[in-house]
Amino acid sequence: MSKTLIFGHKSPDTDTICSALAYADLKNKLGVNAEPARLGGVSKETQFALDYFGVEAPQFIEKVDSDVKDVILVDHNEFQQSVDNIKDVRIAEVIDHHRISNFETKEPLYFRAEPVGCTATILNKMYKENGVPVSKEIAGLLVSAIVSDSLLLKSPTCTKEDVDAAYELAETAGVNLETYGLEMLQAGADLSDKTVLELLTMDAKVFAMGDAKVEIAQVNAVDTSKIYAFQDDITTEIAQIIKDKELDLFLFVVTDILNNDSEILAQGSGENNVEQAFGIKLDNNRALLKGVVSRKKQIVPNLTEEFGK
Amino acid sequence: MSKTLIFGHKSPDTDTICSALAYADLKNKLGVNAEPARLGGVSKETQFALDYFGVEAPQFIEKVDSDVKDVILVDHNEFQQSVDNIKDVRIAEVIDHHRISNFETKEPLYFRAEPVGCTATILNKMYKENGVPVSKEIAGLLVSAIVSDSLLLKSPTCTKEDVDAAYELAETAGVNLETYGLEMLQAGADLSDKTVLELLTMDAKVFAMGDAKVEIAQVNAVDTSKIYAFQDDITTEIAQIIKDKELDLFLFVVTDILNNDSEILAQGSGENNVEQAFGIKLDNNRALLKGVVSRKKQIVPNLTEEFGK
Repeated sequence: MSKTLIFGHKSPDTDTICSALAYADLKNKLGVNAEPARLGGVSKETQFALDYFGVEAPQFIEKVDSDVKDVILVDHNEFQQSVDNIKDVRIAEVIDHHRISNFETKEPLYFRAEPVGCTATILNKMYKENGVPVSKEIAGLLVSAIVSDSLLLKSPTCTKEDVDAAYELAETAGVNLETYGLEMLQAGADLSDKTVLELLTMDAKVFAMGDAKVEIAQVNAVDTSKIYAFQDDITTEIAQIIKDKELDLFLFVVTDILNNDSEILAQGSGENNVEQAFGIKLDNNRALLKGVVSRKKQIVPNLTEEFGK
Repeated sequence: MSKTLIFGHKSPDTDTICSALAYADLKNKLGVNAEPARLGGVSKETQFALDYFGVEAPQFIEKVDSDVKDVILVDHNEFQQSVDNIKDVRIAEVIDHHRISNFETKEPLYFRAEPVGCTATILNKMYKENGVPVSKEIAGLLVSAIVSDSLLLKSPTCTKEDVDAAYELAETAGVNLETYGLEMLQAGADLSDKTVLELLTMDAKVFAMGDAKVEIAQVNAVDTSKIYAFQDDITTEIAQIIKDKELDLFLFVVTDILNNDSEILAQGSGENNVEQAFGIKLDNNRALLKGVVSRKKQIVPNLTEEFGK
């Protein structure tokens, strides 16, 4: 029986992993032979959620095999964030909440993007639309995804729909949203065992902006100064990444999950664009962006506009 | 009060005009200040539907004015088919049933594409999802759109959802689907007063295929030979269009609405690709494509693949 593979973006975060698992569950219940997959390692935050609700991580894939009929993308659409052979496969569906860019198909498809804070919020709606009840485990995964993407409902990307879905799903999952949410975020913000390279790659995305190629990596932390104690090592690693990937800019965003600010480090020929985009002055490549926690809503649009000038 | 403008593609067909009118009606009923617009002339087929149900054509616009806050695209997403200053405006939503290509945004949006035969079928669902009843006039417009895009349910693009919506809407509109549908198609297929240039532009779309720029014009006819009686004039006009727009291929598709075949005329450096794409031999630039009625499903994918080689 032909198989449909469902996966989120590279450098998977909790929304990407949990949405792939949940949508595969929904598709299976609707009679589609669907399997979840992932394009990278499972973060501590995601692993905390998976362990808490007793769900196994999806299979890791490097590319889509030829026995796969269709793929479904969740939580992304830009090809450079997807599987390497994305141009060789048939994309049947996309469920996403990001901007649309560097995406195209030969044929019509089911494409559903909504300007909400989390893919899981859309999936929660789709269970309802299809009259399929959300199980305790799936509710746990979906609420974890919302907590992760919204920094416990504090990100400006978070909409009323996300808030309503989060409380509803927490109840189905049998957890207290605030207690469970903070526990999960703190599990993810434990960076003590990470190498510098891991910090720079664990949630990194590449964007085409104007003619520039920009990579933005983000990590959540309880204490940003602990990370920047290793700034020299960070700078050396980034220089290598810029060279390997021919980037115009690498932006490292360390988000303080308690104060909801971000301490950024910008490196590359596009440093100037960062200063212009945010009206800041970099000091030793770094700057504090007050109240900035969302790569998608508070970083990517400003930079895209600046590089497009 | 800030205004949202809703429009379909250039060289508007019945689905594009009727979907803009219907979605503006739905948005207004949901409290949004939305106005429908159109990017080109109203065809005879569309005018027949508008007159039958007593609805005025939307305003014609050449570009989006600066007082417009947001735009909503219906029945298209490719920028080259949209308003000329599309890159300067904020796209809040897209409701469509075509492939996705040459489309991008800086920020997340509501994007809803479904692989159905007609945008109107999606809009009919959206009325239901929002609990807004469809009026007799709007039902008339929506069923006209489905009849037009599906050639009275005969096109391979037509899905069960389109068929169900068509019968339901015909009932609300108070018309017999077959009788009304054929009358409307025949009104549109009356090409007796058209100049050759009008035939080539009334429903023409430009596509990016590989590195090639391809324009495909389609007309419905009751007797295709009547049109090709003017082949010399057609060839002369197409040569001028190819020169003006720097096209690699112009494909003229004359669809026989009674037999459901198409007689095509291919011109330009990409003629060879047409022969390859359909496994045919052009004779005096022309060929009969048996059973081919859908530009979207039976022409664009084959050509895109051929030009991508």
